[in-house]
Amino acid sequence: MRTEFLKACKGEKTDYTPIWIMRQAGRYLPEYHTVRSKGSFLDLCKNPERAAEVTLQPVDIIGVDAAILFSDILVPLEKMGCPLEFHEKRGPVFPSPIRTQAAVDALRIPDAEGDLGYVMDTIRILRKELVNKVPLIGFSGAPFTLATYLIEGGSSKNYLLTKRMMYENPALYGQLLDKITDCTIAYLKGQVAAGAQALQIFDSWVGVLAPCDFRDFAYPYVKRIIDALKAVTDIPLIYFANHGATLLPQTKHCGADVLGFDWRIGLDDVVRQVGQTVSIQGNLEPLCLFLPEDKLAARVRMVLEEAKGARGHIFNLGHGIVPEADPAKAKLLVKLVHEISREMRG
Amino acid sequence: MRTEFLKACKGEKTDYTPIWIMRQAGRYLPEYHTVRSKGSFLDLCKNPERAAEVTLQPVDIIGVDAAILFSDILVPLEKMGCPLEFHEKRGPVFPSPIRTQAAVDALRIPDAEGDLGYVMDTIRILRKELVNKVPLIGFSGAPFTLATYLIEGGSSKNYLLTKRMMYENPALYGQLLDKITDCTIAYLKGQVAAGAQALQIFDSWVGVLAPCDFRDFAYPYVKRIIDALKAVTDIPLIYFANHGATLLPQTKHCGADVLGFDWRIGLDDVVRQVGQTVSIQGNLEPLCLFLPEDKLAARVRMVLEEAKGARGHIFNLGHGIVPEADPAKAKLLVKLVHEISREMRG
Repeated sequence: MRTEFLKACKGEKTDYTPIWIMRQAGRYLPEYHTVRSKGSFLDLCKNPERAAEVTLQPVDIIGVDAAILFSDILVPLEKMGCPLEFHEKRGPVFPSPIRTQAAVDALRIPDAEGDLGYVMDTIRILRKELVNKVPLIGFSGAPFTLATYLIEGGSSKNYLLTKRMMYENPALYGQLLDKITDCTIAYLKGQVAAGAQALQIFDSWVGVLAPCDFRDFAYPYVKRIIDALKAVTDIPLIYFANHGATLLPQTKHCGADVLGFDWRIGLDDVVRQVGQTVSIQGNLEPLCLFLPEDKLAARVRMVLEEAKGARGHIFNLGHGIVPEADPAKAKLLVKLVHEISREMRG
Repeated sequence: MRTEFLKACKGEKTDYTPIWIMRQAGRYLPEYHTVRSKGSFLDLCKNPERAAEVTLQPVDIIGVDAAILFSDILVPLEKMGCPLEFHEKRGPVFPSPIRTQAAVDALRIPDAEGDLGYVMDTIRILRKELVNKVPLIGFSGAPFTLATYLIEGGSSKNYLLTKRMMYENPALYGQLLDKITDCTIAYLKGQVAAGAQALQIFDSWVGVLAPCDFRDFAYPYVKRIIDALKAVTDIPLIYFANHGATLLPQTKHCGADVLGFDWRIGLDDVVRQVGQTVSIQGNLEPLCLFLPEDKLAARVRMVLEEAKGARGHIFNLGHGIVPEADPAKAKLLVKLVHEISREMRG
């Protein structure tokens, strides 16, 4: 098995910089569309054989150094008792949003194997398929990000309802976040037991919070998840606070092995702030895949140079690869990262 | 006339911290709806008497320390030759987006008085009405932000088309931005001539750029505007790079008298980075208007404390006030900022 990804997470020396790509199993790949066309998005998440198949595609086609479980951060919420729909245009929808004490009280904590066995089965299939290939990353959403979907009833523009609950009814907000946190801990422990070799916690929308609100309304729940996992496993934990440059003075203390970054902050700035305490992941602007080859190479080199002083660096895009991207360019990106990082190690 | 706003912009001592609110003339005010109901949004922008009327409303109702011209950043683009529509749900739409050499070549540079006389007339009316009240702020969009609307044909989620033009056809992108910059310089010079007493340049979407892309594709045009204005006027210039915390090492050199900030960065962090070189504006999280009074007061105090070391501080929300906000809370905010800042000056 290629172990560069796991080594970089733990700050061990590697021959080259490993890379994986957020949403690497996704709509930019024709092979994904072939599998996806057999049913709905949720059907695909819930079918272990097919979910495993699309998880493996980028490993074979693009050549990334880690696989990430094909699933969605919202599936555990469905098993908390919140019906979930995916609409082709609107994206995820929770038709019964959680906005009252009664609604929060009614939420249950799902059992990883009993309620989310299809995810655990996918992980087990993948571990067998990935022997002699690359490590498998499991994942969850972070509590604040998950809460926004439950409270807003789906995606949001300004998170008005979420922030109103935070500000107007912090006790209720706290109860909701506690339940989501308990759910997430159980869910991630289940993924570890099933065989995940690293875990990423996606805090996709946390960048909409002021630093002091992050401190009060988001960070404590992330910290609780990381502490709970660290008590039972030493696999690498990655925390990705999307658009969270100004949260770094806090996130650097969260206890994760790796912090992920979007493209809006230079990794040299990150290294200055975190020193050798954690490894870092990121952060090429996703649309750089539209650059011509020579400029893409220069940009890859820039990111690698910026990350040079890091304890460990896992290359990634700063956010998910877009459906319009050319798979050949994604493959080229992997090749460039490997070649240039080898060359830089001289 | 209350001059605290102008003094704070220039770093002169004030008896209290002045405040104005982005979108202070807007949908949260019932009085605005009364005027707005007489026609479309664009009709209102183009009717100097009515535009002046809504501009004055928050001065009288909320008690802010500056008025800001009621208009929209997109109106000069219409006069560059791009038909503009406002749809109730989708927001602004340019039905003929600018994506080709021919489309860029066809753009013209509007004349401030000849093409945008309705804006200049609004400013002239307002200066008369505001004698003995507060100063008047004029404004424009920044070139990158304006370009996104022209290229995407309206609002966007990930700015795919804009960034593709940047990366795939930087020469065409540069020509488009040059024309928008020339238009903006002429437009703002016109506002100065008509009587604007300060100018704010809104870079609403610039936070989607990596720092190196900001350097290459956005900042030079902002700098050119500021340099051109500084050559003809010494009224305060405010540059608001929304969501631009990581751009601060660059924006602090732009030559503006004031830098505006959204709520995602602490003003103490800002002051550490800019020292006494510029005044700062911001940056209460807009949804804090839903906090109960005691917590709102504590949050106002926090922002004022964080800004304490600044050369000058103009209080504002970190982004526009939302339509759901209670005007009474906005009025309370103004009162709290005045009271607490007076008290802090001891």
